[in-house]
Amino acid sequence: MHLAGLSAFPITPASPEGRVDVAALRALVAPLRAAGVQAIGLLGSTGSYPYLSRAERRRALDAALEEASGAVPVLVGVGALRTDAAVDLARDAKAAGAAMGLLAAVSYTPLTDDEVFAHCAEVARASGLPLCLYDNPGTTHFRFGPALVARLCALPGIVAVKSPAPEPQAVAAHLAELRRGVPEGVSLGYSGDWHAVEALLAGADAWHSVIAGLFPQTALAILRAVWDGDAGEARRLNARLQPLWTLFRELSSLRVVYAAADLLGLAHAAPPRPILPLGEANRQRVAAVLRQLELS
Amino acid sequence: MHLAGLSAFPITPASPEGRVDVAALRALVAPLRAAGVQAIGLLGSTGSYPYLSRAERRRALDAALEEASGAVPVLVGVGALRTDAAVDLARDAKAAGAAMGLLAAVSYTPLTDDEVFAHCAEVARASGLPLCLYDNPGTTHFRFGPALVARLCALPGIVAVKSPAPEPQAVAAHLAELRRGVPEGVSLGYSGDWHAVEALLAGADAWHSVIAGLFPQTALAILRAVWDGDAGEARRLNARLQPLWTLFRELSSLRVVYAAADLLGLAHAAPPRPILPLGEANRQRVAAVLRQLELS
Repeated sequence: MHLAGLSAFPITPASPEGRVDVAALRALVAPLRAAGVQAIGLLGSTGSYPYLSRAERRRALDAALEEASGAVPVLVGVGALRTDAAVDLARDAKAAGAAMGLLAAVSYTPLTDDEVFAHCAEVARASGLPLCLYDNPGTTHFRFGPALVARLCALPGIVAVKSPAPEPQAVAAHLAELRRGVPEGVSLGYSGDWHAVEALLAGADAWHSVIAGLFPQTALAILRAVWDGDAGEARRLNARLQPLWTLFRELSSLRVVYAAADLLGLAHAAPPRPILPLGEANRQRVAAVLRQLELS
Repeated sequence: MHLAGLSAFPITPASPEGRVDVAALRALVAPLRAAGVQAIGLLGSTGSYPYLSRAERRRALDAALEEASGAVPVLVGVGALRTDAAVDLARDAKAAGAAMGLLAAVSYTPLTDDEVFAHCAEVARASGLPLCLYDNPGTTHFRFGPALVARLCALPGIVAVKSPAPEPQAVAAHLAELRRGVPEGVSLGYSGDWHAVEALLAGADAWHSVIAGLFPQTALAILRAVWDGDAGEARRLNARLQPLWTLFRELSSLRVVYAAADLLGLAHAAPPRPILPLGEANRQRVAAVLRQLELS
């Protein structure tokens, strides 16, 4: 699988005890497949993977794969604090039929580059699952630099990178620096919806998108404009979403999409405690933005 | 229990699969009791608590309590990513007979003050275990500000705070600010061995010490000098340890004490992967410092 285009990251509806609601998850996945996203990004940070047990992650994956029914590849979070736990999760994902694992450098004790190298290499080697490196310093507090990305992508099985989109004026240089270090065919994608359009315009292979997990058509319209070479239209469509990006940046995209899914009746689940649902005032701000953007 | 004086934090020797070596742990705890530390800080960050399963944490706690045999109270890490998991751990600790739980704001999705308040309040309420708030932004990336500390210490059952020791010139003001907000009797202690002496001299109740987990006499000598009112002697004893503090700050105290325990034949265990043991060159630096300080 070459990861190109839009990978859509849904939330993982679960009970307060961490039991995944597979029916609700399937109801979120079905419209992603129908919309024609290029990949489903299951159990990403928005999918609260580190808060769920191995067994529940497997249940979620099996349900999503069944719903995707081979029509759309599933990229699945396999990150864990311990290396052996990440290996187990990657083996589970491979056995279940996931197309690719998404591997973040989850940390408690801050990690060195050599430690993250050994961790990722071991997960790739021991599982045989193709991996996308997941650089997410906002949650892991580890930063994959270009030298580490190059070392890792030289290994068989490490085939993609998901980076946080830098500021628009910096993304072309970031992408070029990564590209110089990795073999041809490695997918270089970005997350951070608010800056993704500029990453795509700069030539990124993939947009790993939170908003696409709930509103795939909205995200696909931006991607199509980029693929059509219409940068003006892509930027116009993105600018229209600015009120949403403002909420994402202020309240976190995770909290906002939980509120949006609930407001729209798509999934009635709270994020895992200690994360709290948005309070009523912020929830009303989300509702107002959804109305303004004609998303509700 | 009022936490005052030295709490000594040993490593938790475990197999590569995360099975705690209770005999090796007891061999580390016995000299702490014999030395007369005021508390044993089991399963702190140095004790790699987030890397161990609930069952293994219980095994470690039972072994340490048996070794401490009521002669010295045991403070035990009960932190977890999920609130329900932290509640379970705190209940386990209470049932086992721990004197106090140490509760860090473990995070993946960055947490708000209200979320951490609700998390800690729930663990205190649901477990009935007295708690020490564990402010450790170096691992959790959450910072307990004075206002949040004050809100939490107003709750029954939250009886102590462990803060990272700020720079020497800032510790008196930090301590005074915390003290103003909390009820009388709340223990205000510091970790970060290299700055602990100044925290004690400024009037901190407790020193939560990594070095005391391996060399309790060395740490107790500093504490006794402070308690004797001999600031000069306390600072002299601390200054002598500067080569060790340099290694702690450069390589992390966790990696250094694992190497030291191994070099001294006290415990032959590696930290949990992805954390790697020190390489040979750094290991030799640790060995040289131990010899220089006559600790080996």
